[in-house]
Amino acid sequence: MIDSSSVRSYLLGLQQRITGSIAAIDGGVFASDPWEKEPDEPLQGNGITMILEQGEVFERAGCGFSHVRGPKLPPSATQHRPELAGAPFEAMGVSLVFHPRNPYVPTVHMNVRMLVATPASGAKACWFGGGMDLTPYYGFEEDAVHFHQTCKAALTPFGEDKYPRFKKWCDEYFYLKHRNEQRGVGGVFFDDFQELGFEGSLDMMRSVADSFLAAYLPIVERRKDTPYGERERDFQLYRRGRYVEFNLVWDRGTHFGLQSGGRTESILMSMPPLASWSYQRPVEADSAEARLTSEFLVRRDWL
Amino acid sequence: MIDSSSVRSYLLGLQQRITGSIAAIDGGVFASDPWEKEPDEPLQGNGITMILEQGEVFERAGCGFSHVRGPKLPPSATQHRPELAGAPFEAMGVSLVFHPRNPYVPTVHMNVRMLVATPASGAKACWFGGGMDLTPYYGFEEDAVHFHQTCKAALTPFGEDKYPRFKKWCDEYFYLKHRNEQRGVGGVFFDDFQELGFEGSLDMMRSVADSFLAAYLPIVERRKDTPYGERERDFQLYRRGRYVEFNLVWDRGTHFGLQSGGRTESILMSMPPLASWSYQRPVEADSAEARLTSEFLVRRDWL
Repeated sequence: MIDSSSVRSYLLGLQQRITGSIAAIDGGVFASDPWEKEPDEPLQGNGITMILEQGEVFERAGCGFSHVRGPKLPPSATQHRPELAGAPFEAMGVSLVFHPRNPYVPTVHMNVRMLVATPASGAKACWFGGGMDLTPYYGFEEDAVHFHQTCKAALTPFGEDKYPRFKKWCDEYFYLKHRNEQRGVGGVFFDDFQELGFEGSLDMMRSVADSFLAAYLPIVERRKDTPYGERERDFQLYRRGRYVEFNLVWDRGTHFGLQSGGRTESILMSMPPLASWSYQRPVEADSAEARLTSEFLVRRDWL
Repeated sequence: MIDSSSVRSYLLGLQQRITGSIAAIDGGVFASDPWEKEPDEPLQGNGITMILEQGEVFERAGCGFSHVRGPKLPPSATQHRPELAGAPFEAMGVSLVFHPRNPYVPTVHMNVRMLVATPASGAKACWFGGGMDLTPYYGFEEDAVHFHQTCKAALTPFGEDKYPRFKKWCDEYFYLKHRNEQRGVGGVFFDDFQELGFEGSLDMMRSVADSFLAAYLPIVERRKDTPYGERERDFQLYRRGRYVEFNLVWDRGTHFGLQSGGRTESILMSMPPLASWSYQRPVEADSAEARLTSEFLVRRDWL
């Protein structure tokens, strides 16, 4: 039995827990912006966009909840499920991107979502998606290992196959083909998931979401007071340009959201506060900056 | 008779003239980066990327020439010409984006290009595209009028209809649907142009390209020494974020170039040196910043 109101409550609670912890470590406050779709818009629904900008630890940290209903599933959602094409649907999720100020603290992304479709002839279909991934500016093996260990621990109770499958999927998804590099050190990513039935699949999604703070906060604590100068700041701004490139060129959610009339300012919460570009920026051989690309932005088994 | 070597010479000269004038006004020097496609790449050909970064007047100014040949026209190029689908082709052009340092000087874009296709059964087909458009951070009516007047004067000898048609086309193309705003105050844009035959169409393209410096330099001269402070700089960085959004989300050349294996660093010469994002950035009522959106980033008849 699909109980979407309990999933909604869970997701709203998740948003509160995560923003509460991030605000506590930062010392700042998240602004909360509840929104509702206008009656004449193609999608109906509401959401809460929460954002902390120009904090001590986080230069821009956005965490959004949204819950929408539409009369017809878009083609991009039914590529693997032609029997659901055009069915009425309900989608809800929490999505976050946190951009720290200190270049030694990695940027992080997490998203969990549920989609329910109600085809005219048949029972409701429900599936889940989600994951989290880490994007360092300066690579530390122990951070990548900790992040992946936490992801693995969250998934292993749901089957030994889950972490390796979703780790690989993450590497494949968060890849900048035009740069031939990974967005970061990866993590886990899954979509269209219903293998464990409604309850089991929901539990797995919750397990991933509930492990987010354990995966990320220790890394923030460990790196946030590392001294840095102009060199590290410049490199961070330059690397953030790649984050922009990924999100606007390759990320399906962002790209199609913007092209299809999504809520722009909520979608673009993932943009960094400041980013730079320069032509064929030179990198000093054997530097930490060079090692980021050669040792961290590649597909690696971190465990 | 299609003489592509004379077009190549013209375009290389154009790149030299434009970068020479920009370097003179800036006091800096363009780095010149000639490149050649590897034999195993799908496209063959070469180009010269010229870029001036961190100059006095221009924070990032890129101007590229490229000349490539391919075995098969991509589908995106033959939407309006099914008879040429899959034909071998040759493409050459000059493309530039100049990002000034002073927020009172507008960013400018210009591009001219020629495409020749050789279908197995039939004569060569040749068409031209191009245009230029202006993106101010602080709007000045006299700048927009001067820019449009120069575009119109370049096109009128080729028919009274050209400026109005290409002005409208520019407004339609350089539009951020997800923001419901124009990229800037427009200019002219044309594509698939062969109405005047090879010689006449080439002459028209040259007339547009040859008027670029006359359209832009007087505006640079007029604004480049305007005093500004943090407020104007912040607004400029914020508006540059929109430039990034347009190029990565909506610009067909950029988006498909990156997705299909084009030369990334040359394509992304159009990116600003530094850009910022902030959530629902407030704008003071009746300020110059508010007027940019309400009076300049709208479709207007400037003449």
